[in-house]
Amino acid sequence: MTAVLHICMTCRAGQPVPEGEVCPGARLFTAIRSADIPDGVAVRPVECLSACDHGCGIALSKPGSWSYVYGRMTEADVPEILRGAALYAATPDGLVPWRDRPVIFRKQSLARLPPLES
Amino acid sequence: MTAVLHICMTCRAGQPVPEGEVCPGARLFTAIRSADIPDGVAVRPVECLSACDHGCGIALSKPGSWSYVYGRMTEADVPEILRGAALYAATPDGLVPWRDRPVIFRKQSLARLPPLES
Repeated sequence: MTAVLHICMTCRAGQPVPEGEVCPGARLFTAIRSADIPDGVAVRPVECLSACDHGCGIALSKPGSWSYVYGRMTEADVPEILRGAALYAATPDGLVPWRDRPVIFRKQSLARLPPLES
Repeated sequence: MTAVLHICMTCRAGQPVPEGEVCPGARLFTAIRSADIPDGVAVRPVECLSACDHGCGIALSKPGSWSYVYGRMTEADVPEILRGAALYAATPDGLVPWRDRPVIFRKQSLARLPPLES
């Protein structure tokens, strides 16, 4: 089942962005789009995940599954973000075993949400 | 469309809970269940919203809509939580106009998530 990896495009990561510079969220999006996206993962830009105090924010969601929001992501985290997204996509319910999760997902979770009831 | 108000039952709100005492999340859940729940809102307990550093955590979700996670909620906030949940339930997409949102929702948002694609 395809998982969606949402990247907050407008994230300033709590910092002022000088005029003419690209904000950290847009830079993270570009870095992810330039990487090899795992099978079963679709990357989508989003305008604001309302996690501004803990940006850059990203989220993972797919039908029938728990959704997750992670914060304080940087371009250096792209390989681990994509590894975690692939693991998430491979689950039936969004619940990746704790020991398998990337450390950035274990330590930088902002919130998770139960699946929508059908 | 029925909105689900998720209440983190296991939330310690960042504090130790002395043995024999009820944790803040369970107290918040009891307070909400004892109140008048607005039409179109279903209250559901959940074990951990992974927002432990900013508890008590609650979330609002419904099909085809943006989902929201809020933090630092207390029993004193129950009337405004329910007012905000009713406004959310009445929207087609989860987007309550900013000026109408309870102040606790404006100031204590932890994250939001786009609707699942169908």
